[in-house]
Amino acid sequence: MQDKAMLMIPGPTPVPESVLLSLAKHPIGHRSGEFSQIMAEITAGLKWLHQTKNDVLILAASGTGAMEAGIINVLSAGDLVVVGCNGKFGDRWGEVCDAYGLKTERITAPWGKPLDPDSFRQVLEADTDKTIKAVIITHSETSTGVINDLETINRYVKAHGALIIVDAVTSLGATNVPVDDWGLDIVGSGSQKGYMMPPGLAFVSVSEKAWAAYQTATLPKYYLDLGKYRKDAQKNTTPFTPPVNLFYSLHTALTIMQREGLEAIFARHQRLQSATRAAIKAMNFALFAEDGCASPAITAVVPQGIDAETVRSLMKKRFDIALAGGQDHLKGEIFRIGHLGFVGDRDILAAIAALEAVVYELGYKNFSLGAGVAAAAQCMG
Amino acid sequence: MQDKAMLMIPGPTPVPESVLLSLAKHPIGHRSGEFSQIMAEITAGLKWLHQTKNDVLILAASGTGAMEAGIINVLSAGDLVVVGCNGKFGDRWGEVCDAYGLKTERITAPWGKPLDPDSFRQVLEADTDKTIKAVIITHSETSTGVINDLETINRYVKAHGALIIVDAVTSLGATNVPVDDWGLDIVGSGSQKGYMMPPGLAFVSVSEKAWAAYQTATLPKYYLDLGKYRKDAQKNTTPFTPPVNLFYSLHTALTIMQREGLEAIFARHQRLQSATRAAIKAMNFALFAEDGCASPAITAVVPQGIDAETVRSLMKKRFDIALAGGQDHLKGEIFRIGHLGFVGDRDILAAIAALEAVVYELGYKNFSLGAGVAAAAQCMG
Repeated sequence: MQDKAMLMIPGPTPVPESVLLSLAKHPIGHRSGEFSQIMAEITAGLKWLHQTKNDVLILAASGTGAMEAGIINVLSAGDLVVVGCNGKFGDRWGEVCDAYGLKTERITAPWGKPLDPDSFRQVLEADTDKTIKAVIITHSETSTGVINDLETINRYVKAHGALIIVDAVTSLGATNVPVDDWGLDIVGSGSQKGYMMPPGLAFVSVSEKAWAAYQTATLPKYYLDLGKYRKDAQKNTTPFTPPVNLFYSLHTALTIMQREGLEAIFARHQRLQSATRAAIKAMNFALFAEDGCASPAITAVVPQGIDAETVRSLMKKRFDIALAGGQDHLKGEIFRIGHLGFVGDRDILAAIAALEAVVYELGYKNFSLGAGVAAAAQCMG
Repeated sequence: MQDKAMLMIPGPTPVPESVLLSLAKHPIGHRSGEFSQIMAEITAGLKWLHQTKNDVLILAASGTGAMEAGIINVLSAGDLVVVGCNGKFGDRWGEVCDAYGLKTERITAPWGKPLDPDSFRQVLEADTDKTIKAVIITHSETSTGVINDLETINRYVKAHGALIIVDAVTSLGATNVPVDDWGLDIVGSGSQKGYMMPPGLAFVSVSEKAWAAYQTATLPKYYLDLGKYRKDAQKNTTPFTPPVNLFYSLHTALTIMQREGLEAIFARHQRLQSATRAAIKAMNFALFAEDGCASPAITAVVPQGIDAETVRSLMKKRFDIALAGGQDHLKGEIFRIGHLGFVGDRDILAAIAALEAVVYELGYKNFSLGAGVAAAAQCMG
């Protein structure tokens, strides 16, 4: 049906009507007092969401732009960086380091498995002359639905003294990322994820320790030079013309999120994750990530014996539900259910019910129709 | 009055209602066939607007991001670049070159004066061993309302063989920028200008000659790596999550522009420029740019004896009209009237009439009330 699409992908995620409507307001001049007022309120909201007193800077970019900015603003060519790689995005941050002539030590785990914190401990403890300048961790690995144990890895990084650079693109606004409590130096995220708004904005939180590193970092930059953003943010303005309409929608979205409250937002994502995973188990499908390392934002499913792309295609055709596919070598092997941002219990029930109907139609009979929905509902009590 | 603001600044520029409403449509997945269809139509529209068969790539960035991408994708550290500097944006491209360790030869003119094409001819002809790799020209200098003689300068660049990199941020969609006819290698622009849509997207047109230079260019890049955008654009997709809602609005805006037609768009901007300048002259104010080098997008006014910021402030307070101020050392000296994008004859009449009322109220009596409007109207016959 036209206009009936339901997004159950890990971005873009669903957007509330009031956020959509705020996009349609006519832009104002970005050098006006009115804009500065909006930016001041947005900045306060971002600090609330990040649980930080650090700067949280806003770029017109994708999440990759934010992460690249976070990396290149605190490092110099030849610096040694430890990169955690257990999915497409971890690999990407390694590629960014390569592009800029950074030396990397990649700590890997197979796609679908979490990074082993102990590997980080060993590498960091062995680095007695402190040549490691930074450690890059993807918190929630969107490509596999795995969450890495950032809290533990970060403790080892703190003990060492290197900077911690975090991809929180699909964890921020879905699970606890207490920037100040944990002392996270750089945290990158994107608007089309937990923020309940469309893509187009990216965010970088920068600690004082990271700003100290910025002073001596020599990688070339201009549009992604965070010093320019910091200087202007102090006057509630931006160094380059900002996407004014996306700022309106962020303003609205942050208001909605603040009304719900951080604890409730995290609990909701936890509930959606549990319900989704319970349903998949009840359908006798395999979960790509094990229980101990499951992302709060996305669940990757291995539909044994059925082509994952066929499931996605039929979900779209019959029920107007968009699921995400597997990336790279996982294409056809898994599909991914996004439950991030503006997603409620009803959405999960609908998606699971549709999934049951679809796989049943495809000839999969290794479950009782209704068992998935029943299992999900039991998590919602 | 609330919601009554009228933008007469050089960006963000006014946005048609249908373009605003298209922003409020729910995002779709950017890896869907539906999105690819929109992207294919947008790309065709961008090529039409640029009058080119070259790639025209779309970034989530400001115009500065597009220009930086255009520069860093075709050059290597230590390369010699000639930069035309006669305003804030020409200066900025020089700063980008500095940030990346390029050598520059700046050809300057005072702010408010055009670049002298003959200076470029001399420098290029003297470079017999072809060490100059590229020439960067700001076509319409937004900070001063001056248009540089790109066509003539480009002829000298072509005779030399260097790449020509053009900031067309406030000329594209306002005056003729025939990319293929002139053989422009890199052309950067931004959505909040001639495109009739809000800020948030930036565009880079890239010639085959520029792609050849890309092959050997070694400046580091990732988010701004145009090769990634080209590869994905060939499949009507993007390397990083695109601002889907801004793509919707671009789609609508390009449709409106194609309906009006390039010739009519250029003629309209020419008419708005002539009317604005005639009115300012009839009010016995000075124009910051002389007749031979006046931008089609923006008119900078020197309100002798009156503080320009006071004029702007009263225009906003009394008539809800936003004018732009002078930048850097020109603050208070000039104000700038934007007549770019979705601006019609009525808007100019209203703005001039309001300006007359404001300066009259401020005690300026060196003109006959109504003379500005009369002069503007005579250009609209």
